[in-house]
Amino acid sequence: MIVVKAGGGEGLDMEAVCADIAELVQQSERVVLVHGGSHETNVISEKLGHPPRFVTSTSGHVSRYTDRETLEIFVMVAAGRINKLLVERLQRLGVNAVGLSGLDGRLLEGKRKSTLRIVENGKRKALRGEYSGKIERVNVRLLETLLEAGYTPVVAPLAISYESEALNVDGDRAAAAIGSALKAQKVIILSNVPGLLRDFPDESTLIPHIPLAQAEEYLDRYAQGRMKRKLLGAIEALHDGVGQVVIADGRVAQPLRRALAGYGTVIE
Amino acid sequence: MIVVKAGGGEGLDMEAVCADIAELVQQSERVVLVHGGSHETNVISEKLGHPPRFVTSTSGHVSRYTDRETLEIFVMVAAGRINKLLVERLQRLGVNAVGLSGLDGRLLEGKRKSTLRIVENGKRKALRGEYSGKIERVNVRLLETLLEAGYTPVVAPLAISYESEALNVDGDRAAAAIGSALKAQKVIILSNVPGLLRDFPDESTLIPHIPLAQAEEYLDRYAQGRMKRKLLGAIEALHDGVGQVVIADGRVAQPLRRALAGYGTVIE
Repeated sequence: MIVVKAGGGEGLDMEAVCADIAELVQQSERVVLVHGGSHETNVISEKLGHPPRFVTSTSGHVSRYTDRETLEIFVMVAAGRINKLLVERLQRLGVNAVGLSGLDGRLLEGKRKSTLRIVENGKRKALRGEYSGKIERVNVRLLETLLEAGYTPVVAPLAISYESEALNVDGDRAAAAIGSALKAQKVIILSNVPGLLRDFPDESTLIPHIPLAQAEEYLDRYAQGRMKRKLLGAIEALHDGVGQVVIADGRVAQPLRRALAGYGTVIE
Repeated sequence: MIVVKAGGGEGLDMEAVCADIAELVQQSERVVLVHGGSHETNVISEKLGHPPRFVTSTSGHVSRYTDRETLEIFVMVAAGRINKLLVERLQRLGVNAVGLSGLDGRLLEGKRKSTLRIVENGKRKALRGEYSGKIERVNVRLLETLLEAGYTPVVAPLAISYESEALNVDGDRAAAAIGSALKAQKVIILSNVPGLLRDFPDESTLIPHIPLAQAEEYLDRYAQGRMKRKLLGAIEALHDGVGQVVIADGRVAQPLRRALAGYGTVIE
């Protein structure tokens, strides 16, 4: 069982990712593909006259403010456009893909974070009406039912709150949560960098291997921005029984095959 | 087993439809909900600067021209926005809904109609690049797998061609095809009219009952515009083993309960 996270940011070669998935599926490997949606949501939000708003949390993180309108655009783009066009692409390659979001069958369930504590113009304030959250439960039975019937699940990074509200969740953390729940052999996180870099953005400083025991140390010392979430997800997944996490380059030819061969940052 | 078609046009009370579905599901009835997407696709296409284009076929029918860009907007709106917000709404009512499009697991498969024969400015011409089609195969096993596991499928009106291209399909015909494939007891088609009218748009001229043997006659004599497709779908479904088709009002309170009680046009 391999869980792959790919897509969301710019520059990934999704045709190459899908071709590698098709090869794995042909060899009877079970694969779950988790994708993103942030970049395209920004583009379409702009076009629809509701440009994305980014805020800085009191702890210094920059994140998207997902009000209900942004959430509905995110649903449309991530669970609609990106998810179904990936399903179409995989079907063309002979993979019997089924696209789902975390809402479907309560696949990904979690707690809503409805208020953001932010800093704006030097002042701390509470921003209400946020629709994001952290995944706490995975409906493993739904994924297993589909996998056993020969389908390849393609999952959009949305969750459902305990009050049944749609939530925007981080795709990397979603892949880690699914990997944990399925006790996957490997979780492969493809992005537009070759892995964790000792000296970002110098790609020649790739860190090829991190022992799990030292992962937190690497996280604090080297991870910046979105890489922090990838490493956090990796650590959680490994603690929950995933065999190996590889953070690897999604811009190259045969990105998944390369990652499976150990190119990238391997954490285990 | 009841297949319900609702949504797509304006004016339907989807909250009331979903509440009725929740009641049926609570009573252990198996339900499949099929929705539309035309109206919202028109609205969002306009906003995105790709307004819908309607053409007149050589046989006089007016229909949407679905070029690839329109198709991708339709995918986004129908399989994303509408489908997932319906899933959210049903989940809130305690229904464990799973949203699918016809692409997922090749749920609805058919032949692509890539060229439209149209009349424009009095001249006949062929318009290429169309992405629509007619459903010829339903993946019953996928629906049954989900229904048996306790899920309520919510289906967006897209199909996949034999060459694995996404296709825009008519929601009423999709509901009829699914009803036939599942040998449903009833197919309920809710819209913004009370049923087939003898004298459109005078709602007091509702035709309450049509015997299947005379359905084609009623189709030719009374059906206009989209009502033709509803009746065509009904006739196909009844010939394929569906027990009863009801075309009923979706704008009223308890729309599904009323339709099941026989209010509307009952064809059997």
